[in-house]
Amino acid sequence: MKACVIGASGYTGRELVKLLLAHPKVELSVITSRSLAGQPVEKIIPQVTGIANGLLFSNPSVEELCGQQDLDIFFLALPHGTAASYAIALLAADKKVIDLSADFRLNSAETYKEFYGEEHPAKELLQKAQYGLPELERPSWEKSKLIASPGCYPTSILVPLTPLLRKNLISTSDIVVNSMSGISGAGRNASEKLLYCERNENASAYGLPKHRHLSEIEEQLSLFADKEVVISFHPHLAPMNRGICTTISVPANENTETSKIYEAWNESYGNCPFVNILPSGTFPEVAHVVGSNRVDISAHFDSRTKRLVICSTEDNLIKGAGGQAIQSMNICEGFDETSGLL
Amino acid sequence: MKACVIGASGYTGRELVKLLLAHPKVELSVITSRSLAGQPVEKIIPQVTGIANGLLFSNPSVEELCGQQDLDIFFLALPHGTAASYAIALLAADKKVIDLSADFRLNSAETYKEFYGEEHPAKELLQKAQYGLPELERPSWEKSKLIASPGCYPTSILVPLTPLLRKNLISTSDIVVNSMSGISGAGRNASEKLLYCERNENASAYGLPKHRHLSEIEEQLSLFADKEVVISFHPHLAPMNRGICTTISVPANENTETSKIYEAWNESYGNCPFVNILPSGTFPEVAHVVGSNRVDISAHFDSRTKRLVICSTEDNLIKGAGGQAIQSMNICEGFDETSGLL
Amino acid sequence: MKACVIGASGYTGRELVKLLLAHPKVELSVITSRSLAGQPVEKIIPQVTGIANGLLFSNPSVEELCGQQDLDIFFLALPHGTAASYAIALLAADKKVIDLSADFRLNSAETYKEFYGEEHPAKELLQKAQYGLPELERPSWEKSKLIASPGCYPTSILVPLTPLLRKNLISTSDIVVNSMSGISGAGRNASEKLLYCERNENASAYGLPKHRHLSEIEEQLSLFADKEVVISFHPHLAPMNRGICTTISVPANENTETSKIYEAWNESYGNCPFVNILPSGTFPEVAHVVGSNRVDISAHFDSRTKRLVICSTEDNLIKGAGGQAIQSMNICEGFDETSGLL
Amino acid sequence: MKACVIGASGYTGRELVKLLLAHPKVELSVITSRSLAGQPVEKIIPQVTGIANGLLFSNPSVEELCGQQDLDIFFLALPHGTAASYAIALLAADKKVIDLSADFRLNSAETYKEFYGEEHPAKELLQKAQYGLPELERPSWEKSKLIASPGCYPTSILVPLTPLLRKNLISTSDIVVNSMSGISGAGRNASEKLLYCERNENASAYGLPKHRHLSEIEEQLSLFADKEVVISFHPHLAPMNRGICTTISVPANENTETSKIYEAWNESYGNCPFVNILPSGTFPEVAHVVGSNRVDISAHFDSRTKRLVICSTEDNLIKGAGGQAIQSMNICEGFDETSGLL
Repeated sequence: MKACVIGASGYTGRELVKLLLAHPKVELSVITSRSLAGQPVEKIIPQVTGIANGLLFSNPSVEELCGQQDLDIFFLALPHGTAASYAIALLAADKKVIDLSADFRLNSAETYKEFYGEEHPAKELLQKAQYGLPELERPSWEKSKLIASPGCYPTSILVPLTPLLRKNLISTSDIVVNSMSGISGAGRNASEKLLYCERNENASAYGLPKHRHLSEIEEQLSLFADKEVVISFHPHLAPMNRGICTTISVPANENTETSKIYEAWNESYGNCPFVNILPSGTFPEVAHVVGSNRVDISAHFDSRTKRLVICSTEDNLIKGAGGQAIQSMNICEGFDETSGLL
Repeated sequence: MKACVIGASGYTGRELVKLLLAHPKVELSVITSRSLAGQPVEKIIPQVTGIANGLLFSNPSVEELCGQQDLDIFFLALPHGTAASYAIALLAADKKVIDLSADFRLNSAETYKEFYGEEHPAKELLQKAQYGLPELERPSWEKSKLIASPGCYPTSILVPLTPLLRKNLISTSDIVVNSMSGISGAGRNASEKLLYCERNENASAYGLPKHRHLSEIEEQLSLFADKEVVISFHPHLAPMNRGICTTISVPANENTETSKIYEAWNESYGNCPFVNILPSGTFPEVAHVVGSNRVDISAHFDSRTKRLVICSTEDNLIKGAGGQAIQSMNICEGFDETSGLL
Repeated sequence: MKACVIGASGYTGRELVKLLLAHPKVELSVITSRSLAGQPVEKIIPQVTGIANGLLFSNPSVEELCGQQDLDIFFLALPHGTAASYAIALLAADKKVIDLSADFRLNSAETYKEFYGEEHPAKELLQKAQYGLPELERPSWEKSKLIASPGCYPTSILVPLTPLLRKNLISTSDIVVNSMSGISGAGRNASEKLLYCERNENASAYGLPKHRHLSEIEEQLSLFADKEVVISFHPHLAPMNRGICTTISVPANENTETSKIYEAWNESYGNCPFVNILPSGTFPEVAHVVGSNRVDISAHFDSRTKRLVICSTEDNLIKGAGGQAIQSMNICEGFDETSGLL
Repeated sequence: MKACVIGASGYTGRELVKLLLAHPKVELSVITSRSLAGQPVEKIIPQVTGIANGLLFSNPSVEELCGQQDLDIFFLALPHGTAASYAIALLAADKKVIDLSADFRLNSAETYKEFYGEEHPAKELLQKAQYGLPELERPSWEKSKLIASPGCYPTSILVPLTPLLRKNLISTSDIVVNSMSGISGAGRNASEKLLYCERNENASAYGLPKHRHLSEIEEQLSLFADKEVVISFHPHLAPMNRGICTTISVPANENTETSKIYEAWNESYGNCPFVNILPSGTFPEVAHVVGSNRVDISAHFDSRTKRLVICSTEDNLIKGAGGQAIQSMNICEGFDETSGLL
């Protein structure tokens, strides 16, 4: 099976390339980049030296890509908006697309406009897209031609919360989520704010109270709660390359009990290789999940405030991006779900 | 004026020593440590090389310390419990004590027992102690002989919240506080968990839901709200030497308005040299306060959730420990409040 | 094929376990540790959660280990001295041993005594051991029962220098080597000096002028130069988890020319999957080799001083330890040399 | 006394501003920046919040600056070339200038051209400039109107070496210097290579074998040796904000003895408050000098190679830049040499 990565200059694209080059079932045969066309992949992503098979970045037109018969699956690691334009053409050519941008994560074009500030570029595709968080549900993914790979923050929040909402084990109001992200989450733009000396020995909140990822978090939470859920979300940058550490505070409802929380998690995730449920009273650590496709979670009931505290960690570039995309591909293609992943 | 630091082997004690050696109005003439007695201060705290005047660590008995007529003020940088035993003797000898431990931060001996797991060692002194967060109130401190310097987390929470509670500008229930601390906050014990390779490129929650600092945070919040306040508090470790980044989510009440929040802050802190009020929509950064005695704060109203988000940062070893102790001394002794501090 | 790791509590042992658990040709079936016996491997090394197959640490006697018929290969991740005592028994039982300690890296028992301060514990085995740096030479390794896996610093120095000494392309006197190591190189002991706050934002030389690794570096260099080589070696700690960055200054001799240097490297390493030769004028970076088993090297002639400058980088825990041990196993067992390695 | 900083947007300029604002004898009354004119200094350099007295960045012409009668001293924190053009005008107006650029560090315009690639912009001033490394010599500085503040690397090399060369205690050939610098040494340009995720967990050599600082290092060494000295210099970047860690390897000559090295240092630096001589066998650490104006040095004789190893550390932004400039000012103006410095 042959794969193509479109747009591989950022941190997400690079990690995806690295994972695909090491994947036992897939041959990564085309890597595109407008700015890097002609350059050896090993020169630009030195971490893959020795495993990149002499690949060069190329810059084919969409038409050329659509015309390559032997290319089976396309990963889009592009900015939102741009991704949609590729997806339209590739789907029209009956290609399989896994989009890592935000373009197809939402069901609602109105929400897209509210959070991304522009009309959705391909409204007709929104209902055809599959939200690619495999732990949430596994319907007829095989038939899906368009997977919208979730954002990094949403993954760390939806995995622990959705089983509890589905079973009405927690309140749906006054949920407060704090997340710390490694700096790669802010992208690879040469901006003064992201210089080493600006972020090292530093930490701060940013983008609150209305970060774009809220749109996709709330849409999914509402689906599982079967009513509208609006949450507080506070993203932060912490001085590390990778990883997300999320802490969620949820008011208890009449059903909330630690044992039921764990029962619901065990039931939902008993067969999920990438969800690691830790005992109450222990705390997931970013360093334990970096390099893996896992989400580690634990829950703690606070009898003083009648609130449940849920902690989760993940690698933002793997489970929060490239690894999750590959996990989705594995499922769609009938590979072992863990193929090429740790 | 001559000062003595008792117990200077930890990060708090070291920073305090450094600040006192550079203070223009105080001579630091005795630095005690059981384990380091006889060693030159410059050897153990190389950061003060050239300004330590040949001082050696010593290990005098409490009686000897009490008998030194020319020693005016004593800083206790000791574990809780031990600090109290020194305080009893020093106060009996009519010395001025600034205690950086938790021993005298609470009014209630019951709360102390609940959170620290042992009987309070000097209950009779609890009412005599002054909670040393100068921004909160400045009564007749000159007369106070015992200052209980606050914890690092409480400082970052109490400074922004107390003016709002006093004026009933926010709800008092369902307050959720998340804090990230630099690793120095975990102390200087040779523990595997605090090794460089364990904390670097790592982040995690810890000690929740009932961290010891909650006792002092809630007691002070309740005082200012004039009713019992119970909060959720989620401390985290982030990979940096110093600094605390706190994000507070508070439900709005009928009075909550961004402009009123800022009015209350300006009114309370207009003359406070160490509170830096940032505009709504901007976020305090740890790197901006490291090395200073400041707390930087800002507030953001979230109309979607009807909650107020407050962000604050401080240097945990300065405003959260040694710097605050010196600020208290400056006020007590009638020095310029900023003397020896940035 | 079944493998056993003896002593897996340190950073080297942990990385080795992680690599072996992911190796496609080997089943890691026994992991021993005196202090951790009975504990699940996933609990102690959370990075292998999901791939550790329920393994527990165990603490069998040497006799029990020797008696396990189905155990084919033993990796010793033990302190020097202790490693030798295991090796003696395992070899007597005709087991294959790959020792990651310093016990069998030297040919000379006298040098061992000089650098390690004690009599060599198994002199009779010194001549039977194979120095396990596969890039240097590949004789009849298949027959070797005892592989002495090299130290981290030596690997970064021997790979670039030995082809040049063999061809007499550089002087053998006045070689000056500076290396920076990530903190994992200093081990996992709960020592105050290795606390996060002591090594973060810090850098320093240590252990010079007579670091223990000099013994093995000089013995190998002398072998390839066919005369005694004595060098200056200056190790440093730099604030990062992993990696070694080595810079070597060598006086030119009458044969030194950049083109000849690269010819010699290309000739020696043309078929070596883990040596990456970079053009003169570019510099290897630690971040490019972390996670891989590669050594990246480049050379630069300084016409002003008539000295050659050679730069190299590697991951100290992979090519400098566990990865190299696996590479040796791959070669001995006839697997693809890159099996289980990046 | 009133001071002006011209060009304060980089890390050097910012640190200089911070130090000057805290200096007890100087009022920093003008801070210029083309790009930041009109902005409050506290907004751009948040570290000085509360001590910047409402200062704004301004953008006066050189003529306006020359015309301000009450401005006594000008610090140039500008790129080389630009600095010279300001210096010409300011000196013509009889102002005192401390230049932190490379423009006046060399005696030889030819060397400037060789290393900086362009004609020297003000050759006639080269002989009037005083090389501002106060530890080296203290002639009639009071009369000097133009101080050329040294580079960061040169300071860490010249302080330990010059006393030894002056007394002929070491060889002058085959000197090999390796330095690691914190990332602030690479400047504050928004370049991809300096992004947090590119430099964190990374280390590498760069700019060798002919780094620009060699010009000034060799010129000074040659002055003190009274013959031409050509050295090998290998700069590296290490993942920390600040600090330089230098390790120098020098062949012994017939006079080399550890005791004589220390005698020479003690004689030269006995009265120097910012040189800290550590015992042989101990190693300077970057973390011990960060925040101070000190250089820490130690020496170790290697009897195996007959070479002397010298280690030094400094804060590249203080003793390597802003602090040294202030130290020079203190001496010129007759203030206590340590005024405003730690």
